[in-house]
Amino acid sequence: MTQGPQITVGGATRLVPVIGHPIVQARSPALFSALAAQENCDTLFVPMDIPPGGFSSAMRGFREIANLAGLVVTVPHKPAVLDFVDEASEAARLVGAANLVRIGPDGRWSADIKDGDGLVYGLRKAGVDPHGRSVQIVGSGGAGSAVAFALAQAGAGPIRLADAITAKAELLADRLARALPHGRFNVGLDLSGADIVVNASPVGMNGIGGTPFDPSLLRRDQVLAEMIMSPLETPLLAAARARGCKTLAGIETLNGQARAVMAFLGLSKGRTDHPSPSNP
Amino acid sequence: MTQGPQITVGGATRLVPVIGHPIVQARSPALFSALAAQENCDTLFVPMDIPPGGFSSAMRGFREIANLAGLVVTVPHKPAVLDFVDEASEAARLVGAANLVRIGPDGRWSADIKDGDGLVYGLRKAGVDPHGRSVQIVGSGGAGSAVAFALAQAGAGPIRLADAITAKAELLADRLARALPHGRFNVGLDLSGADIVVNASPVGMNGIGGTPFDPSLLRRDQVLAEMIMSPLETPLLAAARARGCKTLAGIETLNGQARAVMAFLGLSKGRTDHPSPSNP
Repeated sequence: MTQGPQITVGGATRLVPVIGHPIVQARSPALFSALAAQENCDTLFVPMDIPPGGFSSAMRGFREIANLAGLVVTVPHKPAVLDFVDEASEAARLVGAANLVRIGPDGRWSADIKDGDGLVYGLRKAGVDPHGRSVQIVGSGGAGSAVAFALAQAGAGPIRLADAITAKAELLADRLARALPHGRFNVGLDLSGADIVVNASPVGMNGIGGTPFDPSLLRRDQVLAEMIMSPLETPLLAAARARGCKTLAGIETLNGQARAVMAFLGLSKGRTDHPSPSNP
Repeated sequence: MTQGPQITVGGATRLVPVIGHPIVQARSPALFSALAAQENCDTLFVPMDIPPGGFSSAMRGFREIANLAGLVVTVPHKPAVLDFVDEASEAARLVGAANLVRIGPDGRWSADIKDGDGLVYGLRKAGVDPHGRSVQIVGSGGAGSAVAFALAQAGAGPIRLADAITAKAELLADRLARALPHGRFNVGLDLSGADIVVNASPVGMNGIGGTPFDPSLLRRDQVLAEMIMSPLETPLLAAARARGCKTLAGIETLNGQARAVMAFLGLSKGRTDHPSPSNP
């Protein structure tokens, strides 16, 4: 059974579609719906499997549903969603992707990307303030971009970016340097100088496997953060733990992200002293 | 708190949008979702408020969502939904409206109207078999049409149809007679010969009030069925109960309809000996 508060649905429930393809693996509908229930918001995060060919029709349809609070966007729709919103945050524009859309009372759609905020929250919760810490990020795609932006905004630096395609890491470093002129960004894979190492590459995912670098290079005084959520325990996480590193699993970054999502969607205000009655 | 089994949501949950405008008053999301949970179907009925101007866009969008099991359709979309489906039942074609769409494994959308089946189920559950019983139906709109069709199919008759606009009752009687040549249908308001009296008019609804006929004409040997759900107790229901009639409230017809909905959508097959695990 689900842990935590009981979720309910009634005629007055607001919806947040969680859109992706596939979507069956998504953990956010259960996690975010439980958190909304805990906050006494009558809001459900509901999975919607939308193949890429139907994305624009589906997005136009969503505009006509009056009780949506927003959208949670996952693979492969994160870049495309920017074409359907009224405004986007600096981070979303920089990354070229969004994982959240808020629908304001005026009907305006505002996009943002909070994939990296969960990592920052998770690190702090684990007692690691990223401020002033040197970081190695492996993978410079959507997840790596979001993580780099969030860590830089949290005061981390220098931040070293790596990718199997070096040009991707160089492009990201350029864009970050322009957006955050006080940040320090460089390119390459060199674990030796890093306080925090982040895997934002797909290496280690179900169906891919492997590790994105030789785990024997990790030292026990380093923090290893994994962005992959399936499996919950990647080969890299297991190896890092075995070497005595402090580790942060992908699912812990999702827990951190949940708070940022609630705040962004305005779903943290429903808390009352008494549970709200469910609809009959 | 909600009675009955706990509803859950996860990445594998299938959705049935409950579409109307407004939708906040709808009781079917809570009731049908609870019943699906009881059947161990991982399916949620979620309210969607769709103003009429956005209906066609919303319907085109729904075609692109791969994990919908169907649609529950309520006011004012019941007639319009027929323009968006691949096939419709005889009852839906006769009534010119549908309240349910099933999405088959082949992606075909099939419409039906089950508003009347709930009443038949409710009557039987209350110990009243409509077979061979004479019926007076007040109101010949969508609800009255669906009720008349379902009662005629259950062997009730003769069925007398009334409406504030007599031509509507006459037209319905004609259409029923053509669709069900063995049924007996006539027009007018005369409670004296009726075993079962059904209010399928809006008179008594919140914001309208009143009674659709003089309740002192009811006899204690008659059954009074009310199709209105808001309020739960209409002035007519209260008066009929006071006169000693057996009564059936609108909400009881919804409970009956819930079973028909589950069967139509193919959601009654999920029952297992063990509760299915919820998604983490």
